[in-house]
Amino acid sequence: MPFELTKELIEKIEFLIEEKNNQELLLHFEDLHHADIAEILDELNLDEATYIIKLLDSDKTAEVLMELDENDREKILSNLNAKEIADEIREMDTDDAADIIAELTEEVKEQVIENLDDEQLAKDIKELLRYDEDSAGGLMAKELIKVNENWSVTGCMTEMRAQAENVTRVHSIYVVDNKGKLKGRLSLKDLITAPSDAHIEDVYIDKVDYVNVHTEGEEVARVMQKYDLEAIPVVDEMNRLVGRITIDDILDFVREEADKDYQMAAGISEDIDTSASIPQMIRARLPWLILALLGGFIAVKVAETFEPAMDKFGVLFFFTPLIAAMAGNVGVQSSAIIVQGLANGTLSGSVFQRLFKELGLSLLNGLILAVILFLGSHFLLGHEYIIGLTVSVSLISVILIASFIGTFVPIVLDKYKIDPALATGPFITTSNDIFGLLIFFTIAKLILGF
Amino acid sequence: MPFELTKELIEKIEFLIEEKNNQELLLHFEDLHHADIAEILDELNLDEATYIIKLLDSDKTAEVLMELDENDREKILSNLNAKEIADEIREMDTDDAADIIAELTEEVKEQVIENLDDEQLAKDIKELLRYDEDSAGGLMAKELIKVNENWSVTGCMTEMRAQAENVTRVHSIYVVDNKGKLKGRLSLKDLITAPSDAHIEDVYIDKVDYVNVHTEGEEVARVMQKYDLEAIPVVDEMNRLVGRITIDDILDFVREEADKDYQMAAGISEDIDTSASIPQMIRARLPWLILALLGGFIAVKVAETFEPAMDKFGVLFFFTPLIAAMAGNVGVQSSAIIVQGLANGTLSGSVFQRLFKELGLSLLNGLILAVILFLGSHFLLGHEYIIGLTVSVSLISVILIASFIGTFVPIVLDKYKIDPALATGPFITTSNDIFGLLIFFTIAKLILGF
Repeated sequence: MPFELTKELIEKIEFLIEEKNNQELLLHFEDLHHADIAEILDELNLDEATYIIKLLDSDKTAEVLMELDENDREKILSNLNAKEIADEIREMDTDDAADIIAELTEEVKEQVIENLDDEQLAKDIKELLRYDEDSAGGLMAKELIKVNENWSVTGCMTEMRAQAENVTRVHSIYVVDNKGKLKGRLSLKDLITAPSDAHIEDVYIDKVDYVNVHTEGEEVARVMQKYDLEAIPVVDEMNRLVGRITIDDILDFVREEADKDYQMAAGISEDIDTSASIPQMIRARLPWLILALLGGFIAVKVAETFEPAMDKFGVLFFFTPLIAAMAGNVGVQSSAIIVQGLANGTLSGSVFQRLFKELGLSLLNGLILAVILFLGSHFLLGHEYIIGLTVSVSLISVILIASFIGTFVPIVLDKYKIDPALATGPFITTSNDIFGLLIFFTIAKLILGF
Repeated sequence: MPFELTKELIEKIEFLIEEKNNQELLLHFEDLHHADIAEILDELNLDEATYIIKLLDSDKTAEVLMELDENDREKILSNLNAKEIADEIREMDTDDAADIIAELTEEVKEQVIENLDDEQLAKDIKELLRYDEDSAGGLMAKELIKVNENWSVTGCMTEMRAQAENVTRVHSIYVVDNKGKLKGRLSLKDLITAPSDAHIEDVYIDKVDYVNVHTEGEEVARVMQKYDLEAIPVVDEMNRLVGRITIDDILDFVREEADKDYQMAAGISEDIDTSASIPQMIRARLPWLILALLGGFIAVKVAETFEPAMDKFGVLFFFTPLIAAMAGNVGVQSSAIIVQGLANGTLSGSVFQRLFKELGLSLLNGLILAVILFLGSHFLLGHEYIIGLTVSVSLISVILIASFIGTFVPIVLDKYKIDPALATGPFITTSNDIFGLLIFFTIAKLILGF
């Protein structure tokens, strides 16, 4: 029966916390999955959530903490002392432990690591903290099962059982040589079906996909998705096996990146969701609006420059929002395709081929739209033909320029290692507004001569 | 060593195909992963790709076909006869087989199923074809390992080895009763470490997450991500175990959905990538641009209604692109947050709470932007104070309405089971352009009195 978060359940738990009825509380949480407990904690206030975290066993709360929103977690951890945090950390997988510790202040960080009482764990975490969080090193965990190529299958089974204690899920068994260098892999299935007197070097598969600690997360996701891998080993500069990345972490990573790109396209920076606080929301959204507003000033200035046209051709000024909107829409379409192609690694061909295709497409779309605009201007809005001609010719030019900017800017940003998603949304629409109006009035001036 | 797609490799292969040097070709493809072969085929023309598919063994090409873009695959399959397609299908997992068959015409479909020569497979595929492709039934495969609760651990190991032949990856072993109803699960690890004289009913875990054949794909993804599952069993209406969904398929599903949402926000329907043909691109993009253009007509009409203001307050018409752009940007920000919350299932609280929060946020952002606009209008652009006041007051109102529409529309669409992502992008920006201009001129009329 799936878990359901009800108002009654929350009220019950709040009541039990108030009553300090620990026995009843423990009964309630006993059979719940950590992800469900996290959902409950989301609904409680900080003190109540801290109360529950302190009440439950670390082996359960460690996982709960991982499920919480970063901001909530930060607040709860600030209510715990270094020893209590260390107790939680000890129950986590190394990748999660490193992520949590990275969120702490320098001072608390050191105290927590001192309190770990487990040298290997402290060493592993310190190693993981060295890597960029979006690199393979930052995504990997130290927990894995590795066997030496010189072992026998029977010896391997014994050793594996011991190692498996620390590993939540066994995907592949990695084979290393005496120096710890990655040689290949072995599936559990192969191991079960291998004759028990065989040696690992006789049965292992020497083809194994792997990534380097410095490989970017996007590339790890691409490789794992392309080859349908459920786990991938990570090696250091010396080709020594130092960790592994599992597909559930990659799924989280892919979703987060997709969310970020989507929000970026909508003019929202930082990865926020509907539960974000008002100051967080303002921080994520206001800067883009200010950018758009400043761009708007330039657009006003452009229109003012052509004020002399107002007497005879005031009708042109009715068309400015239409022209700006079309420039924005075309620009976003063009840039979205490029940004997505860059993110998924599916962008093929040269920059020129890409621009050529995009401009060809825009020319076709532009011609169709221009005809509609020409007819609409005359028959729907009752303007003279010359006005219809002017706005239609302008529209085609504006669309061509907008698609050029939309295609070119993300490619250039990517070349200079800047996130191309920055180019989508308000940035593209605003700059296309400005260029669009400039082109529109310039062409109008050429045709109408004001 | 990772595979690299080079121009030289493609040229070499094209040359070998022309020479019909099959021996050399087979040598080239022998050690390549199917995903790499698919990348090579992407670069070849249709005849060349078909040549390679016919040349290689079905056990390899079946997987290659799955990796290809749907359009390319369709073209290659149209070059194969029903028996050749059946040969490929037979080598696929049932979920892939059903997906491919679903793409065929009714006539070919029947011929291929007739040619399968495997009654069980034909039955499985026909069953899978019944489900909606985005439901759990449409995502699941029939390949899984199930054991009866009454078996012994030893008997189970033997049976499992036989079943494992058909299953690429063993995640969980599912436990069923005599009627085929799902009772629980067993991990390979548990099975290896269990005493060999135990019975399954003594060692299996009776808590198991599962979904129904009719559960939507988004919900399957949410459950698997929440509980970090690598596979989830699927049951029918009678609770009988009928299939399982693996996380690699969910990763593909999540990525596709995210891509679709992102493109929708950018005004691109259909799931296309940079390799799409020009007609595909036009189909995906032109309708949105036409919608925006028609909206633009209305915006022109709105501005024209206020033409009498042009003589005295022509300056207002310089501000229309700025007002429209701000309305569009705010609307997209608001709707993106809602659309994403709906997609990830993180939208909590009532519609009114949501609107209230969003309007509060917009009021704050609006006030800050209005101050900047007021100052900018006077000091940067040299307008009179009364003009600055007019546009600033209008801006706040426009932003409030825009965020109201941006929040409200996706929620309403979702309520009526329409994809809320439809509301983002051109739809929101266009309707906000129109409402924005209407509000702007109305407020200007009230303040300036023209």
